[in-house]
Amino acid sequence: MTASPDNGAAKGEPIFGTLAVVGIGNLGSSVARAVRKYGAVDRVVVADLSAEALARAKELKLADAYFEAPSKAVAEADIVVLCTPLGAFGAIAKAMAPHLKPGAIVTDVGSVKGAVVAAAGPHMPDTVAFVPGHPIAGTEKSGPDAGSSDLFVGRYWILTPDETTDRAAVARVTELWTRCGAIVEEMKAEYHDKVLAVTSHLPHLIAYTIVGTAFDLEGQEQQDVIRFSAGGFRDFTRIAGSSPIMWRDIFLNNREAVLEMLQRFSEDLSYLQRAIRWGEGDKLQDLFTRTREVRRGVIEAKQDKPFPEGGNGK
Amino acid sequence: MTASPDNGAAKGEPIFGTLAVVGIGNLGSSVARAVRKYGAVDRVVVADLSAEALARAKELKLADAYFEAPSKAVAEADIVVLCTPLGAFGAIAKAMAPHLKPGAIVTDVGSVKGAVVAAAGPHMPDTVAFVPGHPIAGTEKSGPDAGSSDLFVGRYWILTPDETTDRAAVARVTELWTRCGAIVEEMKAEYHDKVLAVTSHLPHLIAYTIVGTAFDLEGQEQQDVIRFSAGGFRDFTRIAGSSPIMWRDIFLNNREAVLEMLQRFSEDLSYLQRAIRWGEGDKLQDLFTRTREVRRGVIEAKQDKPFPEGGNGK
Repeated sequence: MTASPDNGAAKGEPIFGTLAVVGIGNLGSSVARAVRKYGAVDRVVVADLSAEALARAKELKLADAYFEAPSKAVAEADIVVLCTPLGAFGAIAKAMAPHLKPGAIVTDVGSVKGAVVAAAGPHMPDTVAFVPGHPIAGTEKSGPDAGSSDLFVGRYWILTPDETTDRAAVARVTELWTRCGAIVEEMKAEYHDKVLAVTSHLPHLIAYTIVGTAFDLEGQEQQDVIRFSAGGFRDFTRIAGSSPIMWRDIFLNNREAVLEMLQRFSEDLSYLQRAIRWGEGDKLQDLFTRTREVRRGVIEAKQDKPFPEGGNGK
Repeated sequence: MTASPDNGAAKGEPIFGTLAVVGIGNLGSSVARAVRKYGAVDRVVVADLSAEALARAKELKLADAYFEAPSKAVAEADIVVLCTPLGAFGAIAKAMAPHLKPGAIVTDVGSVKGAVVAAAGPHMPDTVAFVPGHPIAGTEKSGPDAGSSDLFVGRYWILTPDETTDRAAVARVTELWTRCGAIVEEMKAEYHDKVLAVTSHLPHLIAYTIVGTAFDLEGQEQQDVIRFSAGGFRDFTRIAGSSPIMWRDIFLNNREAVLEMLQRFSEDLSYLQRAIRWGEGDKLQDLFTRTREVRRGVIEAKQDKPFPEGGNGK
């Protein structure tokens, strides 16, 4: 089920009245910027438990109103977007539940979906619809300054409703993110978590590991690893510069899928290690040739650049 | 020993008369473009055994003369720059040796230095100076079209002369690459190979592995891994899109250092794997916080971007 993005955006009626962003980091601030730029809502309110982040959001004029407590922000919202690290979902859902407007929709941008449904779902009152979601977009930068109104343009935004989810709510959330430029798709939470374990969680784990390995080198060698990072290591340091708390929560909440993919990865690495040890150049060249095809696929799917052509403006 | 780059380039007298590039791929064509742009030589000649690459180099007007046989190109050269995959170094050095002009300098851009000295060194006549080198720069793209005249600006270019190397030749090679914008440093070949095993060879091996792991998924999952690659996997596919032959040769020629670093990496990965399995969030957060420091170091060293500000022109 694909809805293609409408890039003649900023046009059309607002889809919601008031949208509440809970957690104004990179993704939260991108949501706030995008829904305004593309005229998707009448009004944006934000909540963040960090006074510092909230003050910065105010300076950046990201919203129409600012609250520390999620319960205050959601009281007036027609749609709530949870943008905090996953570990906070349960507590926030519980705290805000009694304050949600009847008929409101709650959605999120969490990187793991099974755990989100498990943590937040049970707290949701029957009078609201909960539509779990995840945009496959982002950068390694953290905080309200890092956001971009075009972060979602041309990117996939996955929704993982189950058979109990209100279909009308799913349709409106689809319309919302489509307006912001995303390509919205639906899939099962479990399948999402398995695919993301390969495309996002394992790459981050590997990057954190190798940067840690280099960090443990001593003295001059450690310095030279940084100075001579342009040969490939640079890209890993970028990934490994991502938010520690966000990523801690992702690994803890997608444990089974990550461990399963890690096992496969370790086996494949052992195969290459053996080929290097025994000088089996044909095996190396063979794999390196096959992986090029995957790269070509990524380029054909237009997912090879951090931002779409011409767009990375705030 | 550091020579800082002179970016008021293209000025100053040519440092050499004729420069021969042997192997006109990404790096070879970048060398050809750079020495011309920065006025570092009078004349550029290229050799490539691939008729296709040579024809393309001609269309791009990268040089003043074109030869299939390295022996023909080097006959008129004051400096020869070997830019082929490492596996060809021994054979090319042997073939060109009788044709080198007395007093000529031979250098290279190979990613492993110990093996280069071992493969090419013994073939060099006493009448020429051999100065092994390696620019810490490059992209994943292959072929003459991929080169850039600014590829080396602000990048480290490492030379690994030993105690027998002619110092005057080292000085002139230093001047040449400094003119092209590089920061030239000297170090021992063995140390170079150890540092590069961490900063370049291991990252490539890991990237090839994880892209291979994803490639082995079946059907819809494999397609979705590509479509949803923007969450981190994208960067690995870029690295894993590098030249298969070049990288096969790197791993075969830096076996010991790569296997040593791979062993450390595997231990560190097991530690994280265990932390995930047992839900030890503090250990994860701890490492993820430390790796951020490395990222900051890379940014401070100005090695965080593929090209220097404003410069990526051909």
